Amino acid sequence: MTDSLSRRKLFGFAGAGVALAGAGGVVGAAVAGSGDHAGEADLVPFHGPHQAGITTPAQDRMHFVAFDVTTRDRGELVGLLREWTRAAERMTAGQEAVDRGAVAGAGEAPPGDTGEALDLPPSGLTLTVGFGPSLFDDRFGLAAQRPPALADLPHFPKDNLDPGRCGGDLCVQACANDPQVAVHAVRNLARIGFGKVAVRWSQLGFGRTSSTSRTQRTPRNLFGFKDGTNNIKSEDTAALDEHVWVQPGDGPQWMNGGTYLVARRIRMHIETWDRTSLREQEKVVGRAKGSGAPLGKADEFDPVDLRARGADGEPLIADDAHIRLASAERHGGARILRRGYNFTDGSDGLGRLDAGLFFVCFNRDPRRQFVPMQRLLARGDGMMEYLEHNGSALFACPPGIQPGGYWGQHLFG
Amino acid sequence: MTDSLSRRKLFGFAGAGVALAGAGGVVGAAVAGSGDHAGEADLVPFHGPHQAGITTPAQDRMHFVAFDVTTRDRGELVGLLREWTRAAERMTAGQEAVDRGAVAGAGEAPPGDTGEALDLPPSGLTLTVGFGPSLFDDRFGLAAQRPPALADLPHFPKDNLDPGRCGGDLCVQACANDPQVAVHAVRNLARIGFGKVAVRWSQLGFGRTSSTSRTQRTPRNLFGFKDGTNNIKSEDTAALDEHVWVQPGDGPQWMNGGTYLVARRIRMHIETWDRTSLREQEKVVGRAKGSGAPLGKADEFDPVDLRARGADGEPLIADDAHIRLASAERHGGARILRRGYNFTDGSDGLGRLDAGLFFVCFNRDPRRQFVPMQRLLARGDGMMEYLEHNGSALFACPPGIQPGGYWGQHLFG
Repeated sequence: MTDSLSRRKLFGFAGAGVALAGAGGVVGAAVAGSGDHAGEADLVPFHGPHQAGITTPAQDRMHFVAFDVTTRDRGELVGLLREWTRAAERMTAGQEAVDRGAVAGAGEAPPGDTGEALDLPPSGLTLTVGFGPSLFDDRFGLAAQRPPALADLPHFPKDNLDPGRCGGDLCVQACANDPQVAVHAVRNLARIGFGKVAVRWSQLGFGRTSSTSRTQRTPRNLFGFKDGTNNIKSEDTAALDEHVWVQPGDGPQWMNGGTYLVARRIRMHIETWDRTSLREQEKVVGRAKGSGAPLGKADEFDPVDLRARGADGEPLIADDAHIRLASAERHGGARILRRGYNFTDGSDGLGRLDAGLFFVCFNRDPRRQFVPMQRLLARGDGMMEYLEHNGSALFACPPGIQPGGYWGQHLFG
Repeated sequence: MTDSLSRRKLFGFAGAGVALAGAGGVVGAAVAGSGDHAGEADLVPFHGPHQAGITTPAQDRMHFVAFDVTTRDRGELVGLLREWTRAAERMTAGQEAVDRGAVAGAGEAPPGDTGEALDLPPSGLTLTVGFGPSLFDDRFGLAAQRPPALADLPHFPKDNLDPGRCGGDLCVQACANDPQVAVHAVRNLARIGFGKVAVRWSQLGFGRTSSTSRTQRTPRNLFGFKDGTNNIKSEDTAALDEHVWVQPGDGPQWMNGGTYLVARRIRMHIETWDRTSLREQEKVVGRAKGSGAPLGKADEFDPVDLRARGADGEPLIADDAHIRLASAERHGGARILRRGYNFTDGSDGLGRLDAGLFFVCFNRDPRRQFVPMQRLLARGDGMMEYLEHNGSALFACPPGIQPGGYWGQHLFG
């Protein structure tokens, strides 16, 4: 890190007391002073044993981008990852992307930073990088380092994938409480990568759909239901080790402490859903719409009892209910860490909003977690009638970075 | 308004004290307790002499939607506008769209509200409606009521308009400090209109690009510059009467107290811009990137002197600088109220972000304000090299509504 002034200091913003969480080393580096409504001044430490943006209490907004690597030069790629890491250290601290930023110098050169975040505090920004399966082809000599868990996702029943929303050699997940800060970060990384990477696809999410901390209220998805009640929380360190973080012996050493990110762009047919009765909606989900409680229970966090039956002898949670098919119980105890966002991308040209869920999850081995879950859901989930999966990608997120390190150093080093 | 519980009360959210601004009648109904970072609990009064969302201090996020009217029945259209008004009164007050909402009743019927805003406070929501030129064709008997000022916009040099992002019989501008609240409002109005209207196009904006109040800091656009420094502010009531609000005698009586909304989707070629020197960027804009001061001045709010020359005898504000060509001085004193938003809609398939400015302005007569300004800018503005106008629409926004009234009652009544 440099000693240059932060964006806020430079412009005299009287921030409401930035509290720094302890330096790297805290698992799931917490957003200082977070909670339901994390402040814009929040700063999430960049360094640590794991990348930030995974167990960080989910920020309100997201800009996710997948890149194609256009250079064929391994050294140039490594140089870019180093440069990106330095820029990320700065931007997550509320600074400009580079030391000589938007208004530095005599004006003869293009500015080093694009400037639209000049007056904005860190806003809880996290930047999380992943490597796609295609990065491990013959271009960069990485084939032998490809983790078996980074197996191409299979075709799932009813997938209707748009190649323009799939895959990518690299991804960056930018999350923040101010969307302008997230967009600024993605744009400046793209700019630093000019000539070496090109944007393949990108997705904005306007509202988080999962809690990843017990300090957060469960948010609602665009079906109007609380989503992610039984998500793994950042406080559940044992569950994180079991289900999220790659452990020694799982695969190649460079991924120890990392995790696998699955992204799915799920269009929701909200117009059809909105014409469905409340009873049917609740049957499809398996929870009450108001409270979020499992059907037959009173409170959102009451345990789900898949064996409970009503007075009529029928299961309270239907055989094809979403929470039944997605439950750990149905998957030998396997769980995932969900961290998705609601999106609305204008309209579809047919008189409807193009809206849905940008599903993001982190798991230790997608072959044993996301893939079997999605197979079962795609075949049997009553909710599939209202969903269309049209984007899909898988990335290996390396472990966290120590000061001086860089994204992927154990892969390339 | 009904006496049903607000969304917050229903779900026990301990909001930080909703302060209601005085009942309708205040010009430019102020966001209670607003400022740079308006709180989510803010409530903007719906009723008043003018529609909210015009001089309301610009909220942080926007969802703008244009509709085609699909019914041919005037009575059905009027019924819809009445129903929309009731729903807007409720939603801007933090309530569900209808009295029997997302979780009402025995569950046999589709819920009355889609539910994703159930736990969310009003968030400063405003809903502003406009009528497009096409509404005044032969379908609804409105041709004689068409205001001369609602003349179709001309083709401007370098326009590259996508018909799928242009026009519309009706528009709704939803602005809020929480995007989920804005999206929820648009979705529920679209839902109420099912079978009578269809979404023609819609646009999300993630960051405001103009201040519309002296209480707000000037935000930055995606060129990294402060935007809207010399905008008309809600405190300038004389300027609002002169440049924004339609006055008696201007045209048909039903528009008195209304205004005309121009929307332009302006793609910014940010990659090209980012490769331009700071000096050139500042020359194109006419202001310093850091401070926002006019070139040759020190402070953002220093008056612009278009006649000032540097030591070299050249004008400090270049002949083709944006602020010169857009200045009131160049347009016989004409001004507009700008209220636009930054957008990023994923990527363009060519390795670049699809990003820019969703320009929204309000003016008393576009023929004397927006149109001549845009003509001059399209021909001579140095910034045009970095811009592509690909969406365009014009709407007549009727005046504000009193309790019991409805959107367009003076047009249809």
